[in-house]
Amino acid sequence: MINLEIPKNHPRYQSLKQRERLLEFYEKGVVTVSGLISHGRGEAFDYILGETSTEFAIIAEMAAFAKILESKNPVISVNGNVTALADEEIVAFSKKYNIKVEANIFYWSEDRINKIVDHFSNLGLNVLGRKQDERIPGLMHDRGRCEKDGIFSADTVLIPLEDGDRAEALKKMGKFIITIDLNPLSRTSIYGDISIVDDVRRAFHNFNNFSLKESKKALDNFNNHSNLENIKKYIGEKMNTMTVWPEI
Amino acid sequence: MINLEIPKNHPRYQSLKQRERLLEFYEKGVVTVSGLISHGRGEAFDYILGETSTEFAIIAEMAAFAKILESKNPVISVNGNVTALADEEIVAFSKKYNIKVEANIFYWSEDRINKIVDHFSNLGLNVLGRKQDERIPGLMHDRGRCEKDGIFSADTVLIPLEDGDRAEALKKMGKFIITIDLNPLSRTSIYGDISIVDDVRRAFHNFNNFSLKESKKALDNFNNHSNLENIKKYIGEKMNTMTVWPEI
Repeated sequence: MINLEIPKNHPRYQSLKQRERLLEFYEKGVVTVSGLISHGRGEAFDYILGETSTEFAIIAEMAAFAKILESKNPVISVNGNVTALADEEIVAFSKKYNIKVEANIFYWSEDRINKIVDHFSNLGLNVLGRKQDERIPGLMHDRGRCEKDGIFSADTVLIPLEDGDRAEALKKMGKFIITIDLNPLSRTSIYGDISIVDDVRRAFHNFNNFSLKESKKALDNFNNHSNLENIKKYIGEKMNTMTVWPEI
Repeated sequence: MINLEIPKNHPRYQSLKQRERLLEFYEKGVVTVSGLISHGRGEAFDYILGETSTEFAIIAEMAAFAKILESKNPVISVNGNVTALADEEIVAFSKKYNIKVEANIFYWSEDRINKIVDHFSNLGLNVLGRKQDERIPGLMHDRGRCEKDGIFSADTVLIPLEDGDRAEALKKMGKFIITIDLNPLSRTSIYGDISIVDDVRRAFHNFNNFSLKESKKALDNFNNHSNLENIKKYIGEKMNTMTVWPEI
């Protein structure tokens, strides 16, 4: 039904392309209606951020990158929206640094898990998630499903676009939590040990281009609380100076 | 698929109920996927606004209310999201003051128009939109459709949750434009002569409770530009002081 022809010189080209990808994966049954609404919330914050990685996002991403590489068993969790928005960047990152990826979704169904695993398989990456034989304690029903060799035994989990309850439950398991969420006020961002406030595709794109030496320095100096406060202040100041939101 | 049981004491109860209504009307084929994403953008702004009508919203709503009542032929445009979110409040307002309503949608289909007209009919209100025999100049294809006895001949149009291109085209027709949009930076808000930055249900609920005498005073003193600047400043300040977004 939606067929947007987005001119390449549109000031919000990348954002509109992301929306197009999301709708395509919704048609495929990978993204849920709830995922569409969540994405809209992200769009609002991203527009205010200028649809670019702020200096505060870059600092958090460098720290996260160094932390992932120094972890013994880091795992990246991918859900429907993450698959739609950052599939290629995640494949490149996972292959370059040999990082495990697990398909892990809030509204669980075998069909959606299989579609996500198959999609990554088609891009040349084997991801966990089909054999979810463990549970995240404290989450009801299917929401606690995870894989023993994946998220369950991970020391560090990277949870882009994650639900707040799940972020909290993973935190209670004692894991080091790295979040990617455009809303600096979300519970997911609050539970992060490193909270990246950026678009998920840009974040993984940046991971693929960082130097490890510089990133280690960023990790040593990183303070998540003050970084989040800086982002909130930045968004607040942007709201005062912005004029118009160019929609398609 | 989505079955949220929202506790009544949840701090974001009203917002989550609105989301539930939207998903219900999506299932019925009234709301589009694009409407779901738009709603998410609105949710982000509404959360920052505190999910309540700010003083700036109230001033704009009083001015709009007085303007509608003093107009010769005011028309309220309703699309899929507006129907889902504010149906009962619009019926009450339209009946109380005898204001015309026209079903008018961005992604046009006869089926969706009929569903919206039928829905209002079931609530006891006849709305225009089935006989769209005129066009808004400057809009391509079905996007320009409107009704001669409705929006086409209106002096004042109230366009809640409207697309920016359509707001601009209606403005070029010389109509007095009243918008309801949670994003003060949207093109729709910018094209408004009176731009209400509030949830659509709360706005119509407020209309139904204003005194005309007080509202006329608000209209006389109303300055849309400075009111929008005040709202942007308010949102900016809220971002600095807020801590956490309670999700379900």
